[in-house]
Amino acid sequence: MFQDKSNPSTSLEQLGEFQLIKHLTKNFKIHHTSTVKSVGDDAAVLDLSNGKTVITTDLLVEGVHFDLAYMPLKHLGYKAVMVNLSDVYSMNALAKQITVSIAVSNRFSLEALEELYSGIQLACEHHEVDLVGGDTTSSTKGLLISITALGQADEAKITYRSGAKPNDLLVVTGDVGASYMGLQVLEREKQVFLVNPQSQPDLTNYDYIIERQLKPEARKDIVELLEILEVKPTAMIDISDGLSSEILHLCEESEVGCNLFEEKIPLDPQMMQTCEEFEINSTTVALSGGEDYELLMTIDQKDYDKIKGNPNLTVIGYMSEPNEKAHLITRANQKIALTAQGWKAF
Amino acid sequence: MFQDKSNPSTSLEQLGEFQLIKHLTKNFKIHHTSTVKSVGDDAAVLDLSNGKTVITTDLLVEGVHFDLAYMPLKHLGYKAVMVNLSDVYSMNALAKQITVSIAVSNRFSLEALEELYSGIQLACEHHEVDLVGGDTTSSTKGLLISITALGQADEAKITYRSGAKPNDLLVVTGDVGASYMGLQVLEREKQVFLVNPQSQPDLTNYDYIIERQLKPEARKDIVELLEILEVKPTAMIDISDGLSSEILHLCEESEVGCNLFEEKIPLDPQMMQTCEEFEINSTTVALSGGEDYELLMTIDQKDYDKIKGNPNLTVIGYMSEPNEKAHLITRANQKIALTAQGWKAF
Repeated sequence: MFQDKSNPSTSLEQLGEFQLIKHLTKNFKIHHTSTVKSVGDDAAVLDLSNGKTVITTDLLVEGVHFDLAYMPLKHLGYKAVMVNLSDVYSMNALAKQITVSIAVSNRFSLEALEELYSGIQLACEHHEVDLVGGDTTSSTKGLLISITALGQADEAKITYRSGAKPNDLLVVTGDVGASYMGLQVLEREKQVFLVNPQSQPDLTNYDYIIERQLKPEARKDIVELLEILEVKPTAMIDISDGLSSEILHLCEESEVGCNLFEEKIPLDPQMMQTCEEFEINSTTVALSGGEDYELLMTIDQKDYDKIKGNPNLTVIGYMSEPNEKAHLITRANQKIALTAQGWKAF
Repeated sequence: MFQDKSNPSTSLEQLGEFQLIKHLTKNFKIHHTSTVKSVGDDAAVLDLSNGKTVITTDLLVEGVHFDLAYMPLKHLGYKAVMVNLSDVYSMNALAKQITVSIAVSNRFSLEALEELYSGIQLACEHHEVDLVGGDTTSSTKGLLISITALGQADEAKITYRSGAKPNDLLVVTGDVGASYMGLQVLEREKQVFLVNPQSQPDLTNYDYIIERQLKPEARKDIVELLEILEVKPTAMIDISDGLSSEILHLCEESEVGCNLFEEKIPLDPQMMQTCEEFEINSTTVALSGGEDYELLMTIDQKDYDKIKGNPNLTVIGYMSEPNEKAHLITRANQKIALTAQGWKAF
């Protein structure tokens, strides 16, 4: 679980910047004919003439967004790509290209960066994405990863946050809150490790929730599923900051209200069990946990038959008139105003 | 010259991340119909169906790439955009969109970020570029800026590093080495200031070279000029790491040699004077200084009449057979092998 410090170590000073980029990206394959020229010139050249292009970017900072004490570098590379692809999928587009820039302090060896890039490469292969550029530089402290992702879709398919209408169904993919509980377990084990470095954590009862935290999977499959089901959501967003915060974004951008039913929110049994163990309310975690990288969408009621019974899609509420605002309807049938308590960058 | 610490200060904790992005980007105008949807959703939506797209990205780190002791934040914002646009122009493309991500420690106030974004906005207006997205997060130390730029060009116009042929003319825009000497003056004044904080530097004799360092201008005008002159360079690169290093890139990617004539290298009189004052060889500075953001290109000899006498374009040498390698022909008619001594990130 914790970083192995005994690995062979090659300092980054031994390589120049150009050699380093070449070295780190040499095994990456190109999947798309839209990638005309990849890494190696002042800029990459792309043919994006087919449909519309979506572009999104995210910055991950050590000590703010991740802790290398329990985040293996390969997982970090994978997750950093997922965070960006999730934004592309939330536009109902398919990801095609990414650029990856990193700033690293001299405490990182070449082998450490190879680990990071092996995770990036795995993500590119699983999601058929081309790495087309980036920058590699030194930092005065820690590791920072900046990724920009490009995707493509027909204009008619692109799904914004702003299209939800009153009475649309609110639908979520997968389950929520597990990633946050995985983080709680990892934080606890880190504290144990700091007190007793000889301790070996037994995480068998937490495998699912830890995987949700360390190796989330952006929902490319949902974009493909919606295509097969012939459903175009009226609005869509990905869940990075927590269900509650994302619902409020949809309400604000679409100018609608929302009723969310507590009993409908999909929770994983392991997540619920861990909530009990930590004595945290599982609904609070589901609403505010964040880092689920599931998709939250609104669907016209006429499309209900198309999604009914699909195990990937759970109806958790419906949109209402704007003056009704956003509410949670509890199991006790109480109506509570939703507030954004998701992860905040500051 | 040095940062005014007496400004009103609003802490970033007072604003959420979403409010901050909205606030910082609210005055940015959209110039291009290819920007379908800008900041405000999970991703921006672009129509890049016209020609080919080029994409490039750069990361600037405080303490590595810039020093806020003498770099005003507005200039830094401007320069950070220029660094990226220069890469787009070096592909013979015109820049259309950028994304800007920043990581800042809590020592920065809202007013400081407004200064930074005012420089970014000025750059966007001067170069007609749309800011379409970004990420804003906290850092554990210092300021970091990550910019990705998109440009467009007809496929037939795109100029790679790899197209130079033996006997092509080697042509540079503007003059080189001034930015490096501007940095030397600023570093000297910083040392004076550290010893005597009451000192006010007199920089009147260094205005040009300091502007070259603090507010470089990427050569959009050259892309437009080449269009008017009906010249397509056989290869092109921008000068970020130093003339010498860029020539070697062209030679390597195009598999040619090069003869560069010392006496032809365009130097600004103020740069030469400052070299004398610092007792540095001006040719060494021109070759290795970097951060000029001029364009270096190779042109077929048949196009010579089209560029002859143009004050923006100086012929400084010619490409040769690959086995001849890259050489500098000195004023004393000595032939010296060129080596890359440009700025290195590590």
